[in-house]
Amino acid sequence: METVRWEDEKVVMIDQSKLPNKLEYLELTDYKEVADVIKNMKVRGAPAIGVSAAFGLLLAAKNGSFNRLKNAADELKKTRPTAVNLFWAIDEVMEAAKNSDDWEEAVREKAFEIFREDREVNRKIGDEGARVLESGDSVLTHCNAGALATSGEYGTALGVIKRAVEKGIDIDVYCTETRPVLQGARLTAYELVNDVGVDATLIADNAVGITIKDLDKVVVGADRVVKDGIANKIGTYNIAVLANRHDVDFYVAAPYSTFDDEKTIDEIEIEERDQDEIKEICGCKIAPDEIRAFNPAFDTTPAELIQGVITEKGIVELPKERFQK
Amino acid sequence: METVRWEDEKVVMIDQSKLPNKLEYLELTDYKEVADVIKNMKVRGAPAIGVSAAFGLLLAAKNGSFNRLKNAADELKKTRPTAVNLFWAIDEVMEAAKNSDDWEEAVREKAFEIFREDREVNRKIGDEGARVLESGDSVLTHCNAGALATSGEYGTALGVIKRAVEKGIDIDVYCTETRPVLQGARLTAYELVNDVGVDATLIADNAVGITIKDLDKVVVGADRVVKDGIANKIGTYNIAVLANRHDVDFYVAAPYSTFDDEKTIDEIEIEERDQDEIKEICGCKIAPDEIRAFNPAFDTTPAELIQGVITEKGIVELPKERFQK
Repeated sequence: METVRWEDEKVVMIDQSKLPNKLEYLELTDYKEVADVIKNMKVRGAPAIGVSAAFGLLLAAKNGSFNRLKNAADELKKTRPTAVNLFWAIDEVMEAAKNSDDWEEAVREKAFEIFREDREVNRKIGDEGARVLESGDSVLTHCNAGALATSGEYGTALGVIKRAVEKGIDIDVYCTETRPVLQGARLTAYELVNDVGVDATLIADNAVGITIKDLDKVVVGADRVVKDGIANKIGTYNIAVLANRHDVDFYVAAPYSTFDDEKTIDEIEIEERDQDEIKEICGCKIAPDEIRAFNPAFDTTPAELIQGVITEKGIVELPKERFQK
Repeated sequence: METVRWEDEKVVMIDQSKLPNKLEYLELTDYKEVADVIKNMKVRGAPAIGVSAAFGLLLAAKNGSFNRLKNAADELKKTRPTAVNLFWAIDEVMEAAKNSDDWEEAVREKAFEIFREDREVNRKIGDEGARVLESGDSVLTHCNAGALATSGEYGTALGVIKRAVEKGIDIDVYCTETRPVLQGARLTAYELVNDVGVDATLIADNAVGITIKDLDKVVVGADRVVKDGIANKIGTYNIAVLANRHDVDFYVAAPYSTFDDEKTIDEIEIEERDQDEIKEICGCKIAPDEIRAFNPAFDTTPAELIQGVITEKGIVELPKERFQK
């Protein structure tokens, strides 16, 4: 899976809004286009957004002024408020630019570094996480924390599953459809059958409770890991509470770039998205016009429900080990 | 709302698959058509199914043989395995037919009795349930247990809300979209804005966890109430577990005709429906063809998570009071 890459001085990425029906690539030549595709979720997933933003800055830096670069950084930061490594990636690039005589070259180097590191980090997360899975396990994942959520190859949570399968660990996998944007049905199901190649079953979000009784483990990604918990796609908290009730281990797989030492879960700004994501599916109206819809994109899960966070440096427990980076 | 009724020797019912976009009535003249619309969920909701089946038997009885009536009973029982008052209504009608010299007339009388009693019972459930709601409450309901789930006028769970609003109790209401068939988005949202007239908000099923923290009460219907819990639309158990974690009262509203003393929750047969209900919405493919889908229509919720069952005879606790019919 080649989710996001730099090719012929353009940002090339899979248009995830077309999946699973069509595998189509976007070629972007202006950072404003990158901001748009992040906002419209044609690319999504915390690591993929970070890499895309870094390459977006590289587009802005090319033959541009430093002022244009700063504007691009500001604009890209406004696209998705919850994914902390969007900010992390932009800050890394801007820091490198500020501290270099050849700031365009510095942007280029840092963007590629973020891209390469994302791949390396995700493979390591996969290796660390595969150690918690055993043959015979049934594993649930939520939303898409797969190759499509990163720069490609391995994902975070789905990377754990993919590495386990590559190592010959015999598991079966359940994925939730993940309303409102259906990234589980559209993207995770697509990766499971087309890339991972594992015995896989799709369930409605409502079927988590009836299904979880027979499962062994849950592995999800995270958009932000804070002192006392995580923020991840809406519905994650539901699953964590149900897993807890049925003594199913609940793991989070996330790179250190999604860690945010500054905040607690109650301080995380939860992005609220357009009501039409609830009231329409595939352009089909599923609710009356007059009803109001509440559409938070994320929820938070407290540390007490999380068995461990699988990172590129091993599995850490929240909150006690999590500052030992 | 006139969900199901008998008119000009036909069964007339709202085609719920067309809502919220179109309010269209079906006119059925053969019990096989009734069986089809129950199976295809053009009518759904335990009480509405019971009334429809009773009127379906009346179609079979008209100018038919007693054998044809028996066949109709068998066929109608096969449509939906979980809704106990489908079986209850059919048994009531068949019992009346068997014990009468004029069995066609007996079927007619019993079918109308079931219809009238459903209306009366639901109004009483509404009155009993309204007593647990207070001004200022935020109340969540799941799926559709409204007028559309019964013969009309009042529903069960939504009847509680409607009666409370009629009595001037100032509440606001949340409804879940209720995948896979979206009865909450399509039907409950429609009733809330077009019939009940209350401050109402639609949420994705995944948003139950983030929303429930700020709520006071949950009221849902039930397809079957057994000794140690209930069976209701898939996703009910998720909500009950989340409500329990946040000390939100979880009420079930159901007529005694959905009570089944014979079984425990583990013995209830859970209907598994077509995979395409998960993989397609409004004819739009949302998952790759190759993925398997698991599509249970119901789940079960144990008594310990249920504050009380609101019936036409008052609120009963499970399991201790529930045999004092």
